[in-house]
Amino acid sequence: MSEVHVARRSRLRDRWAAAGSEAALISRSANIRYLTGCAVPGAALLLGPDGGDTLLTPRGPAAGGHTEPPGDTGGLRRLVLPGTASDAAVAAAGLAAAAGTAVLAVEEHDLTVARHRALAAAAPGLRLTDLGCAVEQQRLVKDEEELAALRIAAEITDHALGELLESILVGRTERHLALELERRLMDHGADGPAFPTSVATGRNSGLAGHRPTDRRVEEGDFLTVRLGARYRGYRCRIGRTFVIGPAPADWQIELYELVFAAQRAGREALAPGAEYREVDRAARQPLEAAGYAEALEPCTGHGVGLEIGEDPQLSPTAMGKLDACVPVTVGPGVHLPGRGGVRIDDTLVVRPQADGGPELLTITTKELLAL
Amino acid sequence: MSEVHVARRSRLRDRWAAAGSEAALISRSANIRYLTGCAVPGAALLLGPDGGDTLLTPRGPAAGGHTEPPGDTGGLRRLVLPGTASDAAVAAAGLAAAAGTAVLAVEEHDLTVARHRALAAAAPGLRLTDLGCAVEQQRLVKDEEELAALRIAAEITDHALGELLESILVGRTERHLALELERRLMDHGADGPAFPTSVATGRNSGLAGHRPTDRRVEEGDFLTVRLGARYRGYRCRIGRTFVIGPAPADWQIELYELVFAAQRAGREALAPGAEYREVDRAARQPLEAAGYAEALEPCTGHGVGLEIGEDPQLSPTAMGKLDACVPVTVGPGVHLPGRGGVRIDDTLVVRPQADGGPELLTITTKELLAL
Repeated sequence: MSEVHVARRSRLRDRWAAAGSEAALISRSANIRYLTGCAVPGAALLLGPDGGDTLLTPRGPAAGGHTEPPGDTGGLRRLVLPGTASDAAVAAAGLAAAAGTAVLAVEEHDLTVARHRALAAAAPGLRLTDLGCAVEQQRLVKDEEELAALRIAAEITDHALGELLESILVGRTERHLALELERRLMDHGADGPAFPTSVATGRNSGLAGHRPTDRRVEEGDFLTVRLGARYRGYRCRIGRTFVIGPAPADWQIELYELVFAAQRAGREALAPGAEYREVDRAARQPLEAAGYAEALEPCTGHGVGLEIGEDPQLSPTAMGKLDACVPVTVGPGVHLPGRGGVRIDDTLVVRPQADGGPELLTITTKELLAL
Repeated sequence: MSEVHVARRSRLRDRWAAAGSEAALISRSANIRYLTGCAVPGAALLLGPDGGDTLLTPRGPAAGGHTEPPGDTGGLRRLVLPGTASDAAVAAAGLAAAAGTAVLAVEEHDLTVARHRALAAAAPGLRLTDLGCAVEQQRLVKDEEELAALRIAAEITDHALGELLESILVGRTERHLALELERRLMDHGADGPAFPTSVATGRNSGLAGHRPTDRRVEEGDFLTVRLGARYRGYRCRIGRTFVIGPAPADWQIELYELVFAAQRAGREALAPGAEYREVDRAARQPLEAAGYAEALEPCTGHGVGLEIGEDPQLSPTAMGKLDACVPVTVGPGVHLPGRGGVRIDDTLVVRPQADGGPELLTITTKELLAL
């Protein structure tokens, strides 16, 4: 595990050393975890020009969070801050300055203006530049171990959802169903949910970011569910829509078939070399053509990994192309205010056509089930 | 409800208008909620100099989160951003510039450097200053409605914990107990947990930020539990330590009595006019005197409200004094590596001595129970 982290830091160093900075300060927690395995909140990682890397963690017994056991540190020095120091990033800047560093690249998309000022004040001789999203870019393509964790997360997610579908749903509130799903995720081995579970019934169905309410499931409802497991830090997502009762109404069948076709088009557009906006367009176009342009989300999918919403964004304005081994969600949907709607969401790994095309991780059926 | 928000914005305006800025941009979500009742993620609030306030929310059907129903907007204009605009704060800056604003105060402790640059680029003529923690300062003293929500949150929390204590604990994992507690919080009416529930048994007990693991509760263990309900956005916390088995060992009684005395001293130090560092000192000193200085957290308590960790911080370096109607936690603890420890945490509201001293919200017994 440690060799993996050493290699990742090495690759990152190659990328930014080319830009002239002498050291880099990583503050974003998912990035620190990616580069060291350490998930302690409030940590900071100082990457030196020649492999002298230091991980600074806040004071306090075990400071919460999961830390990899010390063992082979692979050249990573670990410093626990004294009780009086409250910001590991500021301490890291001081350390860099003391080591004679002249230029420090920081994550301007993570540090607040206030923290950045504090860094500059703690190390006045240091010139601060922007590392940009260098680590996020590197995180795009997953290695086998990361993909294995995502597969397990997806398995757990499918299991939890499958069990719920066998239980009685009518009369239960969105909140309780969401809680039930999260409990089943844990029962099946998840570290926790990948994001707040969304259960939306009746007029709430189809809303992307719907927070579960006390609304009860009724016969005739569309029921949309969005959940995901977190396993070893890796997060996936599934979204499915069901009908409650013996059979769906005509308008429900029609809407479902439309969203299904759109989501399938998005999935089928996934390939190495495909532009992000192409994939988004494939999923978006059928829904726009049917008149639902106003009801759509800014992006129809995005990357997953240590964070549930990573690069790349699959949206009309996104720049870039997919690579093999990039996991993404494809999850368009339509919500009709006052009526409800449909959302279908999968996690897939981009693969070459020669290898069978995109690898579907979330395999729960996408057939419209009447429950 | 809306009059409350209008009054809060008015009070804030008085504070910053004195500093010479013409408008203020609120980006921190808890602050936006405090000033408008709106809890939509990614929103931005633009406060004009003469009461012309605008709330900008991201595009998308209901964009998730809980929004107060429109109704009487109390002078608050609501704008939903077009799909192409991704940052409400940047859009707000553009709006301010278009309205002829010359100086805009922003929350530098919330905006990242990258977002701040984007704001400046979107409105080049605008001079950006720092609002500082003006809203957080205003949030310190809670009104009756806020205190009522906190009381209910505490009641829910006490209920959930009480029910767990009646169930069998031995043999169950920390994870399952944490999940069980969160389910009971929901069952008793919480919007959700105030923070990730912590359950720590045996050698893990007493760790402040411990994330529940698969470790099983065993006879003889100390078991520390930290949980809280979120109700109407308001969050409280309780922390209790129990012994598993027929009776505690001598070292456990001794450690428990020490931490109990320290926590009581902290509680008794709460009064209007008491310095934050005084209260911290009262709770910290008995533990330091017993030789546990190295095992202590940087702060022994902090404010609660819309966020679980608000101002004030009760720590040795904190500057400031308590006021009546400020709710805080007092929660010292000791963790002995390899053995476990004790943590006792309450949420209280500062009250004048004449009114009976601090109002204890979390009333679950602090007697050492053998379960």
